[in-house]
Amino acid sequence: MPSERVLIIGGGPAGIEAARSLADLGIPLTIIESGERLGGMPITAHYAALTPSFEDAEQAMGRMIAPLLGNPAIDVHLQSTITALRGAAGNFALTVASDGTQAEVEAGAIIVATGFQHFDPGRETQMYGYYEFDDVITLADSERLLKEHRFVRPSDGRPPERVAFIQCVGSRDRQIGNEFCSKVCCGVASKQAIEIRQQLPDSKVFIFYIDMRMYGYWENQIYWPAQEKYKVNFIRGIVAEVLKKGDRLVIRGEDTTLGRPMEIVVDVLVLSVGMEPSKGTREIAKLLGLPQNKYGFIETQGAPLATVVTAVPGIFAAGSCTGPADLEDCVSMGAAAALKATALLRKKAPAGGG
Amino acid sequence: MPSERVLIIGGGPAGIEAARSLADLGIPLTIIESGERLGGMPITAHYAALTPSFEDAEQAMGRMIAPLLGNPAIDVHLQSTITALRGAAGNFALTVASDGTQAEVEAGAIIVATGFQHFDPGRETQMYGYYEFDDVITLADSERLLKEHRFVRPSDGRPPERVAFIQCVGSRDRQIGNEFCSKVCCGVASKQAIEIRQQLPDSKVFIFYIDMRMYGYWENQIYWPAQEKYKVNFIRGIVAEVLKKGDRLVIRGEDTTLGRPMEIVVDVLVLSVGMEPSKGTREIAKLLGLPQNKYGFIETQGAPLATVVTAVPGIFAAGSCTGPADLEDCVSMGAAAALKATALLRKKAPAGGG
Repeated sequence: MPSERVLIIGGGPAGIEAARSLADLGIPLTIIESGERLGGMPITAHYAALTPSFEDAEQAMGRMIAPLLGNPAIDVHLQSTITALRGAAGNFALTVASDGTQAEVEAGAIIVATGFQHFDPGRETQMYGYYEFDDVITLADSERLLKEHRFVRPSDGRPPERVAFIQCVGSRDRQIGNEFCSKVCCGVASKQAIEIRQQLPDSKVFIFYIDMRMYGYWENQIYWPAQEKYKVNFIRGIVAEVLKKGDRLVIRGEDTTLGRPMEIVVDVLVLSVGMEPSKGTREIAKLLGLPQNKYGFIETQGAPLATVVTAVPGIFAAGSCTGPADLEDCVSMGAAAALKATALLRKKAPAGGG
Repeated sequence: MPSERVLIIGGGPAGIEAARSLADLGIPLTIIESGERLGGMPITAHYAALTPSFEDAEQAMGRMIAPLLGNPAIDVHLQSTITALRGAAGNFALTVASDGTQAEVEAGAIIVATGFQHFDPGRETQMYGYYEFDDVITLADSERLLKEHRFVRPSDGRPPERVAFIQCVGSRDRQIGNEFCSKVCCGVASKQAIEIRQQLPDSKVFIFYIDMRMYGYWENQIYWPAQEKYKVNFIRGIVAEVLKKGDRLVIRGEDTTLGRPMEIVVDVLVLSVGMEPSKGTREIAKLLGLPQNKYGFIETQGAPLATVVTAVPGIFAAGSCTGPADLEDCVSMGAAAALKATALLRKKAPAGGG
C-alpha cells in the first residue's frame, strides 16, 4: 500500500511553501528540520528585512508558517535529521533521529529543501581581514545588526561614519572553486546599504562591485533608490587589501571605472559572502543518493524546463539546495515540488484513487 | 455547483507547465492561445537554443507539449482570445472568441500566462539605426538566423566577420520608461555570441554592456566559456552612435573600463532588446480586472513570499506576464500556479469532495 504522506526535509522558505501547498491540497506531510525553529535562513541568521520587499523578515516568515501550526495533518520534527532511507518512490521509509531517539517515517514522496550556508571568508586568503579585524563582518553579521537597529562598529559599539561592502566574496572565484554567481548578494547588499542610510542618516556607504546584478525589478525597486534617494556610492572596483589604520580600516584597490588606484577609510567593512550548499544539503544528497554538482549543490534534471526533478524518482528538490536562489525562486520551487510530489502520489495510488 | 476546470490563458512555457501540472493531478483544463501553435515565444520567435542549456528550442518545447496532445481532459483553443468574464472564484464563465465564433467556457480558477513581447527599438531614439540599416537587428532576429544556421548580414546574405551586441536596449532606461532590468538579455546575448562563434569560427564577437547580469549558474555555464573558450570580447561601454561606413557599420562610444573613446567596425549589430508586457497581457489584465504595475506587467501580491497570487481571488499569474522572467522562473511559477488553482478548486468543492 503506497504512502499518502510527503516528507519535507528542511523548514526554510522553500520547505515551508511546499508544506503549505501540500496542506492546501489535503496531503498529510512531515517536516524534518535540523534547527530549533521553522523559518530557515531568514530566521536562523536573523535577517532584518526581506529582499526586495523590505518587509520585516520575522513577521513575513511568521505569516508563512502560521497556517502550518496546529494542523493535525502536519507533523513537525525540530532538531531532527534523517539518518537512513529505504524503499522507493511511493513507499519510502526513513529513519528520523532526534534527541538521541529514532523514529520511522513513511512517505510516498520526498522534498529536499535543505538550503545553503554563507561562504566563510576564512577559507579565502586573509586579504579581507575577516578573522583579523573586528570591524570586518559578513552580510549575515550585518543583517543581525540591522535587525537589532544597532548597526555599530563591533570593536567599540559606536555607530560607523563610513561603511563599505565588498561584493563577490566567495563567488565568481576560480581560486576557491566557486565560479558561480551567488545571485542574491548584489540585491541584499544594496538593501542593507539603504537600511544603514535609514538608520544612520549621516553615514556614507560604499559598495565595491564587479557587476551589479540587480536583475528584473531589483533594478528599479532597490538599485535606483539606493543611488538616487539614499546616495549609496557604487564603485566598480577591485579591492586588493584591507589594513588597520588607528581604529579604522583602510581599503586599497583600483577603481576600474576611473582606472586609478583608490584608498578609502571606513569604520565597518561588510563582506558580501556568497552561497554554498549547507552541511545538511551535502549530507542528505549523499544519504538519498542525489547527484551533486561540482559545488556540492543537488543537481536537478531537465533544466531550464524542469526545475525540481532530481535523478531519483519520488525525490524532488527546491530552493537553494539546488544552487543560488532568491526568495521568489525558493517559493515558486517549493510549490512546484509540492505539485510534483502530489502528482506522484496520485500515480502510485490504487486505481480509482487520487 | 463550482466548476472543476481550470482555464489557462497563454500556451508558452509557463502556461504549458501549468497545464501539464494540472493534467498530472487529473484536473480538467482549457488552454486559450492566441497564436497558431502552443510553445510561446521560444516557438513563435523561432528561438535557436534555450538559455542556458543550449538545447534545441523546438525539441525542448515539443517534449514539454507532447503529453498534452490527445489528452481528453485538455481542451486547447488556438487562435483564440477571451472577450468577456463573468462570475467569481469557483464559478467563472468566460467567452472565448475564435475564427469569428464565440463559445462559453466555465472554470473554477484561471491562470494567466500571457507573457512578454520584445521591446521595439523603433520606440527609442533612432541612434542605433534599427529601422535605418539592414544589418542592425534584434536579439529575436538573431535567434531566427541562428536557428536556420545561416547567421548572415541581412543586407547581402554574406557571413559577417565582426558582430557586436549592445545590451540594455529598452531596459534600465528612464527615458523610455523601462527602469527595470529585463533579466535574461545578458544570458541570451552571451549564448548567441557562443553560437555565432560556433557557426562562424573566424568571426569576432563583441558585447557592449553596463553590467553582465549572469546570475547563478549562468556565470559558470555561459559567461566563463564565452570568454575563455569562445573568445567573445566583453566590453563595458556606452555606445553613442551607429553609422554606416561603406557596406559596414561603425559603432562609436566609450569604453568605460579603459576610460577612452572607442570606435569599432562591424558587419552585424545585434540590439539586446528587453521585455515588455505582451499585448495579450495588457488586454487580459484590463478584462479580468488585474492590477498592472507602471510598466503594464500584472502585479502579484505578497512578493517575495508569494509569487503567483493576483489581487483577484481565483485568478493566478505565472511567467513573464508578471515581469522579466527566465525559463526557470516561468516553469516553477507555472507549476506553482497550477497548485494554487487546484487548492482553490478543492476549497470550493462541496464538502467531502476534493
